[in-house]
Amino acid sequence: MALVKPVVFQVVGYQNSGKTTVTGKLIEALNKLGLKVVTIKHHGHGGKPNLFPQKDSSRHIVAGALASIVEGEGRLLLQVEKTETTLEEQIELLKNLFPDVILIEGHKQKDFPKLLILKDKADLSLLETVKNVEIILYWDENLKPILEKSVGPLLYNIHDQTAINKIAEYLTKKEA
Amino acid sequence: MALVKPVVFQVVGYQNSGKTTVTGKLIEALNKLGLKVVTIKHHGHGGKPNLFPQKDSSRHIVAGALASIVEGEGRLLLQVEKTETTLEEQIELLKNLFPDVILIEGHKQKDFPKLLILKDKADLSLLETVKNVEIILYWDENLKPILEKSVGPLLYNIHDQTAINKIAEYLTKKEA
Repeated sequence: MALVKPVVFQVVGYQNSGKTTVTGKLIEALNKLGLKVVTIKHHGHGGKPNLFPQKDSSRHIVAGALASIVEGEGRLLLQVEKTETTLEEQIELLKNLFPDVILIEGHKQKDFPKLLILKDKADLSLLETVKNVEIILYWDENLKPILEKSVGPLLYNIHDQTAINKIAEYLTKKEA
Repeated sequence: MALVKPVVFQVVGYQNSGKTTVTGKLIEALNKLGLKVVTIKHHGHGGKPNLFPQKDSSRHIVAGALASIVEGEGRLLLQVEKTETTLEEQIELLKNLFPDVILIEGHKQKDFPKLLILKDKADLSLLETVKNVEIILYWDENLKPILEKSVGPLLYNIHDQTAINKIAEYLTKKEA
């Protein structure tokens, strides 16, 4: 199989800024363009994710397996325990699936190209700490004139119905 | 990191022969020997495994992501959708974690070295169809004389308390 180098792109912003919703819409728009999308989400605020509801697979983990795959009818679940995997290692893991796009929700301290969601003026400090912001989605129209002064990222109001498709197309061109 | 070639070993037998229990005990014994174990389980009889209880990660899948990783506090969960992965592809995926042993529960039609569990005489037909059986665990003591006639696999009664440790050591030597 040909070696595919996927586009890696992050969706970041403070909690409750709408990251999961935006990521979901972006997945749908990229799918419509025919692209295979995989995602990574940091469960940082949520603590440790729950084990699978699958009894037997979880029994392997409870017995001390480092990792366990259960697969059936086109769905594969992998759980890995007692290991701190870096974002980079997670990306390598997903490359096994030959995706076109790897969308990362969160991990705003990382250096991959990003979409940043800003809710209000209090969020503007993120512009100083978050690197490689290529697109900004803003909630508060009052942010627009402030953001327009800084040259660089593409700007869209989060309620702009055309924004997601434009961003999806932007990512497609990134790949080429 | 050094390239590790893990031992791949299967635990097979009919439904309710005790595969998951044996696999669990084997994981514990291998851990005691200091080996990193990962497992693969076919969910064939159980239909499609349930999605993660993690809401946001499942939202990515529902939106159309081919795969999604959620990670936090030393636990990583990967779900892959709409794809029939072969056992060999699952093994490749797990090699990313540099395990010492990959234990496969089920997939008895596959050709990797195997432990076969036999409950009673009705199970003996498996000896004709299952390849590369290196170890047999039998439930019914009446099977022993029959099995002893066939040269080859190591034989243990499933209630033999020493069997699991011996099998674990056997696997360790396999690696060397």
